[in-house]
Amino acid sequence: MSEDLDCLFQPKRVAVVGASTKPTNLGHMVVRNLLEGNFPGVVYPINPKHESIGGVPAFPSVAETPAVPDLAIICIPAKGVLDVVEQCAKLGTKGLIILTAGFRETGPEGRAVEDQIVETARANGMRILGPNCLGLQVPGLSLNASFAAHMPGAGHVAFISQSGALTAGAIEWAIGKGIGFSKIVSLGNAADVDLAAVLDYLADDEDTHSAVVYAESISDPQAFTSAAARFSAKKPIIAYKAGRFAASAKAAVSHTGAMAGADSVYDAAFERVGVTRVLRISDLYHAIELLDAGRVARQPSLAIVTNAGGPGVMSADALIARKGKLADLSQGTLDALNEVLPAAWSHSNPIDVLGDAPAARYQAAIKAAVADSNVDAVLVILTPQSMTDILGSADAVIEAAKTTDKPILGVWMGGGDTNEEAIARLDAAGVPAYEFPENAVDAFMDIVASHRGPLPSVSVTPADGFEPDRGRARELIASVPEEGVLSELAGKELFDAYGISVALSRLAATADEAVALADEFGYPVVIKIASPDITHKTDVGGVVIDVNSAEEVREVFARVVASAREKRPDAAIDGVTVQPMIPAGGQELILGSRQDPSFGAIIMVAAGGTSAEILGDSAIQLAPVDSDMALSMLKSLRIWPILEGYRGRPGADLDQLTTIIERFSRLVCEHPEITEIEINPVLASSPRGAIAIDARAVVDRDALANPPAPYSHLGIAVGQAPQA
Amino acid sequence: MSEDLDCLFQPKRVAVVGASTKPTNLGHMVVRNLLEGNFPGVVYPINPKHESIGGVPAFPSVAETPAVPDLAIICIPAKGVLDVVEQCAKLGTKGLIILTAGFRETGPEGRAVEDQIVETARANGMRILGPNCLGLQVPGLSLNASFAAHMPGAGHVAFISQSGALTAGAIEWAIGKGIGFSKIVSLGNAADVDLAAVLDYLADDEDTHSAVVYAESISDPQAFTSAAARFSAKKPIIAYKAGRFAASAKAAVSHTGAMAGADSVYDAAFERVGVTRVLRISDLYHAIELLDAGRVARQPSLAIVTNAGGPGVMSADALIARKGKLADLSQGTLDALNEVLPAAWSHSNPIDVLGDAPAARYQAAIKAAVADSNVDAVLVILTPQSMTDILGSADAVIEAAKTTDKPILGVWMGGGDTNEEAIARLDAAGVPAYEFPENAVDAFMDIVASHRGPLPSVSVTPADGFEPDRGRARELIASVPEEGVLSELAGKELFDAYGISVALSRLAATADEAVALADEFGYPVVIKIASPDITHKTDVGGVVIDVNSAEEVREVFARVVASAREKRPDAAIDGVTVQPMIPAGGQELILGSRQDPSFGAIIMVAAGGTSAEILGDSAIQLAPVDSDMALSMLKSLRIWPILEGYRGRPGADLDQLTTIIERFSRLVCEHPEITEIEINPVLASSPRGAIAIDARAVVDRDALANPPAPYSHLGIAVGQAPQA
Repeated sequence: MSEDLDCLFQPKRVAVVGASTKPTNLGHMVVRNLLEGNFPGVVYPINPKHESIGGVPAFPSVAETPAVPDLAIICIPAKGVLDVVEQCAKLGTKGLIILTAGFRETGPEGRAVEDQIVETARANGMRILGPNCLGLQVPGLSLNASFAAHMPGAGHVAFISQSGALTAGAIEWAIGKGIGFSKIVSLGNAADVDLAAVLDYLADDEDTHSAVVYAESISDPQAFTSAAARFSAKKPIIAYKAGRFAASAKAAVSHTGAMAGADSVYDAAFERVGVTRVLRISDLYHAIELLDAGRVARQPSLAIVTNAGGPGVMSADALIARKGKLADLSQGTLDALNEVLPAAWSHSNPIDVLGDAPAARYQAAIKAAVADSNVDAVLVILTPQSMTDILGSADAVIEAAKTTDKPILGVWMGGGDTNEEAIARLDAAGVPAYEFPENAVDAFMDIVASHRGPLPSVSVTPADGFEPDRGRARELIASVPEEGVLSELAGKELFDAYGISVALSRLAATADEAVALADEFGYPVVIKIASPDITHKTDVGGVVIDVNSAEEVREVFARVVASAREKRPDAAIDGVTVQPMIPAGGQELILGSRQDPSFGAIIMVAAGGTSAEILGDSAIQLAPVDSDMALSMLKSLRIWPILEGYRGRPGADLDQLTTIIERFSRLVCEHPEITEIEINPVLASSPRGAIAIDARAVVDRDALANPPAPYSHLGIAVGQAPQA
Repeated sequence: MSEDLDCLFQPKRVAVVGASTKPTNLGHMVVRNLLEGNFPGVVYPINPKHESIGGVPAFPSVAETPAVPDLAIICIPAKGVLDVVEQCAKLGTKGLIILTAGFRETGPEGRAVEDQIVETARANGMRILGPNCLGLQVPGLSLNASFAAHMPGAGHVAFISQSGALTAGAIEWAIGKGIGFSKIVSLGNAADVDLAAVLDYLADDEDTHSAVVYAESISDPQAFTSAAARFSAKKPIIAYKAGRFAASAKAAVSHTGAMAGADSVYDAAFERVGVTRVLRISDLYHAIELLDAGRVARQPSLAIVTNAGGPGVMSADALIARKGKLADLSQGTLDALNEVLPAAWSHSNPIDVLGDAPAARYQAAIKAAVADSNVDAVLVILTPQSMTDILGSADAVIEAAKTTDKPILGVWMGGGDTNEEAIARLDAAGVPAYEFPENAVDAFMDIVASHRGPLPSVSVTPADGFEPDRGRARELIASVPEEGVLSELAGKELFDAYGISVALSRLAATADEAVALADEFGYPVVIKIASPDITHKTDVGGVVIDVNSAEEVREVFARVVASAREKRPDAAIDGVTVQPMIPAGGQELILGSRQDPSFGAIIMVAAGGTSAEILGDSAIQLAPVDSDMALSMLKSLRIWPILEGYRGRPGADLDQLTTIIERFSRLVCEHPEITEIEINPVLASSPRGAIAIDARAVVDRDALANPPAPYSHLGIAVGQAPQA
């Protein structure tokens, strides 16, 4: 499947439609860029009015070129583009790069034309990059199919961006730094070829050893997660996602809505598929420098060699803040360092080679450090002091780097011309060099994090052989009233149908019925208002615990109903629910799901109790979640020690808890019509084991009437749905 | 008091002791630096062997110069320094800069010499910078009294550093950037003149409008906090503190020890005295760039002008992450922008002036933005696109900046020579320019935060007229057993003596006594093991709540004592304590204090309960804390909404709670012999109001025998102690 973008990335014959004699015109720039880039294939400028463009023979239309182009780069105004696409379709041209703007981004009319173009392309097996993009560059093939004036050298990092302006900036930056790329791709509107398609293609591209991504939105989550997981299983992906706070969560009805906002779902999705997310755009650039050097560290133990104590401590601070590790130097290494360093050296990591360190001392210290198997990489820091040989030390580091495959990073602090020259020398020699310690440490840690290997695969239907009662579940869901909120009772029965242990609870329409139920359960009981319209029952005085006698049941029934009527006169009230009281004292959790607009159904586990939203102690994953992943989610909570058992107190029944989460995920996966569902609380450590105490679910009645394709509401492709 | 450093910063006659003919020698460099810096005063090279140094007449000793030097810069080996200091003392030279290393940092012998030097200086009214430092620079006076080869231009930012290497780096960096300083001070060992002394001096220095500090440790906390508060009341201080994780907390006995680690005390101390802390050294440099520009924004509403959407969103992300604000543009501003921008502009902030923006469009947009009273500063972003005039746009921004006093910051993304030239032009014209949006936003937010004005002053003895029973308190503290841990009962009585409401509780040595107490209090009661050796009572099964009858009391007494004996056979057991049971359900807090080695007694308020340490929801302040500050601490907790009252649930009695904290602070302030004290929990919202349930205190028996000076254990100077 992944050769289909060859037409874009490996063309032999390239037509430039809209090639112009006017130097400021896009079409002119593209022709010039192809020729000045020394593209070894054929360039066909297309222009009906001119015989040549910049001396190169031009042709009146794509149909009249000497041979059929593989790739057409379209630079003419939007209104003529569809016509050209149709011509290309007839000819058999498979690749199109549409640089022209004026489509989807301008409104419904532009969108309609864009859709027609894509339809034509799909019907003819063509692939389109753009429209409204900067184009692409493949330095290794001398292909500058963009209107960016310059092209960096060949390298092994792919740069993929949803912003043309950012791409242009990155190109200039990389040239200044001497950094190379395997591919540079500006996605524009991504009408056809999107981030997923490019990642999928580049996963198999031998020239590409890593990808850095600037993303603004994800169009097709299943395609993205599949491609990213496939790519990240082999090589690093580092991504910056813009718009963290832009899509502010709408006023949320449930805790899940409030706690699992759009940005945290991006975190979860990237983590799930092995994409390392950076939160500062500068970190993306700093990572490129280290990736470009092509050396790999998979563990975070760093040796720091410095000619000043302060910056050594700063680097250690930055490292530990990122959960990296100061490498434990072996005795052999300490001995070796004692041989080559003056007696006053620090005798530990950071290795302070002292303020008067000549270049040779740096070299000797680095060689000793890289020989230590506890050291995954070396950070070399220089601050200019009176005796410091700024350039000579850079050269010495470069020499030392030649003796090892481990990453060597430089920090030449202090700026100024000589420092800049040293940094340029180091960069050019494959020793990425930075101005500040934290930049080097962050790049190191980001790239260690990005080497993950294959990710665990998770199935909707776990191996325990449990089969839910799907018929009953469907009936319960179908019973949803018009407002779309399932009753508490129906919700609990739904959980029961999926094998989730729930606190029994029955509806009592009258005080007499409530007393009868309480007598049946035994005292004490919990009484709650039953109304499809009241979500937060405690807010209307609708929950009373520890009701100890028939008399009290009557009194509470009257009080609860009266209070709800007074506070929510609009609400329909069915009576109360009665349930046996579960002893207090265990840790409460919230288990929730909602459908995220970008990544589909998500599963959230959070610390519960009245302070749940306030403390915001939550873990989010894309569905499906199995019991192993459920355990990882629980472990990532701050309250994990309580669940595990803390200071001699018993913990939760983790087997039962992870089973509940797994089955909850299964319920969510098998029912796209459930848009939001929550168990709040799950009592994680009652004497009766983990148990769901209260439930609520929101059902999309339209989806109920017209069921979506199985699993289409998930952000991860999971194969076939089971037969009921 | 603040003129006493004039001898260092404003000398007329400078002797260089150890001036040398050898160019690589410190003494030679210093003479050369003074002369090449065009120092307008007199330089006396001191060298017994040479008639001149670099053509300048030399003198055999400081005693033989034509006039008495104000300042002697000492570069001779450590062993001769004391002798020179004594000569200077005799002459009446008041200022000494000792560049020489080889003192305190080398061990006890070096420390002894250093101490002698300081003693001599103090006895003679002299001030010493160093030893083991780079020296100082005052560019405005053409005074380069350091061995750094170069000196930046004159400016209004003071740079104060505990690392000579970092100072050397900063000097090179500033020269490269064209940034000026009022003073550059390398503190070295800070044997006499420390950070506090320099801040105190510069607080009154009209040339200094702000200070940036690189700190490794604080030697005299009261001096530091006084000087920093005095400085920050007038002008910004921004500081980087190295060694966040170095001084790792020792295995902590109390929650306070575990939760209020050394680094969080630095946070608290800096915040208390108005010092803005940055956690990345690069942020210190980025802040210098903005401070150097000399424009002030006190509020965080930023207008963003950009020629590309992506970087605008990135900047907004960075701003909101730092709790800044995208300025709300007024209708008038929107109208003005509509006049000068093409129709497709973003029509909101960020102001996207579009990818084809010529220089004039930037200028017009900035002028419209700064005219809006909702806009505190403007961030201008340029990414190089095909039509972009990189330098012309920089010039246009510079022109626009001339029309306003508001800070204008530039971000020229993408690197490369032309971008670098643009950044240099902007920097030179007082528009600090950065490569990445987050750097500009962080600098902006740091400096907004650093304009605080006078800080609230806090007294140990609050205005409510309450006087503790000091006699009783002293007796209780003196009753501490040899192990230094006050019994729970004594601890509670101590709180009672300071007017803190406590849960009554009495010791019962036998089961019969326990029953008698329970009968007296009424059931249910709480029974706890009583042992001076057992800190965490629940860990040994030593706490039982809800004991409902005499029979149960007997059974619990036996069980609790047996369990404690089994789990802690080493512990002395006095019996149990009995107290009436306080109804559950309220929010628990921990109120604690410990003596921090850097900043003295601290007060901590934290969310309590069994999950206290796990959640780490705490606020820390230096003592003293009054009720206003106590309220601020409570408001900074994540659980504040619970204390305030949340979703219709009643909150805590805040008056009573803040009074408890205030009186707890008073207890701590008046008793330096208490090294650690904790109320855990304070029940914040019981029906009986806020109440202390359990107490523990550690007393330093040596301090009890030899009481320290009143309030000497506080990090903030608070005046006279009250008479008991």
